[in-house]
Amino acid sequence: MPKVIMPDEYSFCFGVERALEIAKKYIEKGEYFDTLGEIIHNPHVVADLEKKGIHVVNNPEESKKDKILIRSHGVAPEVVEKIKNLGKEIIDATCPFVKHAHDSARKLVDEGYCLLIVGKKHHPEVIGIQGYARGKGHVVLKEEEVDNINLKGKKVGIVSQTTMLLANVQTVINAVLKQNPKEVRYINTRCSTTERRQNAARELAKMVDVMVIVGGRHSSNTNRLYEISKEYCKRAYLVESYRELRPEWFKHAKVVGVTGGASTPPEDVLKVKETIEKFNTRR
Amino acid sequence: MPKVIMPDEYSFCFGVERALEIAKKYIEKGEYFDTLGEIIHNPHVVADLEKKGIHVVNNPEESKKDKILIRSHGVAPEVVEKIKNLGKEIIDATCPFVKHAHDSARKLVDEGYCLLIVGKKHHPEVIGIQGYARGKGHVVLKEEEVDNINLKGKKVGIVSQTTMLLANVQTVINAVLKQNPKEVRYINTRCSTTERRQNAARELAKMVDVMVIVGGRHSSNTNRLYEISKEYCKRAYLVESYRELRPEWFKHAKVVGVTGGASTPPEDVLKVKETIEKFNTRR
Repeated sequence: MPKVIMPDEYSFCFGVERALEIAKKYIEKGEYFDTLGEIIHNPHVVADLEKKGIHVVNNPEESKKDKILIRSHGVAPEVVEKIKNLGKEIIDATCPFVKHAHDSARKLVDEGYCLLIVGKKHHPEVIGIQGYARGKGHVVLKEEEVDNINLKGKKVGIVSQTTMLLANVQTVINAVLKQNPKEVRYINTRCSTTERRQNAARELAKMVDVMVIVGGRHSSNTNRLYEISKEYCKRAYLVESYRELRPEWFKHAKVVGVTGGASTPPEDVLKVKETIEKFNTRR
Repeated sequence: MPKVIMPDEYSFCFGVERALEIAKKYIEKGEYFDTLGEIIHNPHVVADLEKKGIHVVNNPEESKKDKILIRSHGVAPEVVEKIKNLGKEIIDATCPFVKHAHDSARKLVDEGYCLLIVGKKHHPEVIGIQGYARGKGHVVLKEEEVDNINLKGKKVGIVSQTTMLLANVQTVINAVLKQNPKEVRYINTRCSTTERRQNAARELAKMVDVMVIVGGRHSSNTNRLYEISKEYCKRAYLVESYRELRPEWFKHAKVVGVTGGASTPPEDVLKVKETIEKFNTRR
């Protein structure tokens, strides 16, 4: 029976956990609402809420309830206005780290900085940050994208999508510096959970015989953990549930590493751990 | 007879030229002074001023004149006070780009930033900047030096010695970002003349048959131009004066590149150009 090791962070990130807690409290009080977009990218969690009468709407007008929950990703201020104008109450579950990105983006724009947002265009969190930047932020990720904006002699302000890696921010800042700007002011809006998880998965993968990542196949952060694991451990697997585990994967394995993505419920990861621990790996 | 090509900037930088102009105006008015340190690192220019009765002092107390000239490098505010307390008049020839570094360093310290000064410890310009930073700046150049300062969660302010290269600033900022600071605010105090000269020397060296750098053998920026030239042109020479030129260096040469350092007088460079143009290179 192999020993299973897990990192400190193997499940929901702070913002997701907080949003689910907020939702739970309202449900317990018997107050119902809809969520603007999926509360997290996990089909089981969303289905579970559906059963309790909490639906996903893509637009505030679609909702028939008098309360709308804003998920951890946050939204642009125009969306907040829209919900208020419809006479609905807002349950604000925006992640405090995302809120910090909103406030920082607005502050930099209001102080006259030309704003760059390091992030993925069209990502809901980035659209929210752009809204708080009064629509004035340039969304960039690659060096070439920065090269295409004229920053010479300008005061350049920089924030990032909370899940960006250090390397993304470094790439953008180095490209900005090349243009000889007047000033570069970077407010750190990264939430380092993504990076800590990746570093932890890398270190774990180096030490163990088999590595198992638990999470949705469509979750980008889960897939990245799987790719990193494959790089450092010959036997690495991605599963959505403990039911997919095969005893032969663990043949002769003494130590197994297990972790999950930011939208993986803790019980899913723990169930995987327990299942592996019961396999007879001597055969 | 070879054709000689020169870049736009081949002699005194803006700050040095301005300091010499200021000195000249006082001399023309018959008002004499001493300079605190050599006005530029060029023995001919310093000797020429000596002949006119303008001496170099290393300390304001040493001077017997009632006026002291502060050279383009600038000084710390304590030195300004000291001169004033001695009842002497200040002729301020501090380069405006250096002044900008002084003001930016003080502003960042006063706004509560932990200040890094990208530069060389013990360089007179850096000592001046540190003075304006109320003695609170950490002077750094290498990644390891930044790693030794705890910046995690802090607001980090950054300025540089005016002659630093883009790569120096990038190295420091990347190292700062690694520590996950709260904010990084870089005020660009680089004067790009050093980098423009180096880039121009590199491009010139690629195109010409022979490259000649004019300037003091002890001038660090002149030597760097020579090193870059050697890298890109098989025949590269460093001369302090046209008298050192040898016709055999230019054998069969059709095009010759000539440039000088930031403390090389223009007439020295032009004399080299004219001498080369008169060589018979067909022999």
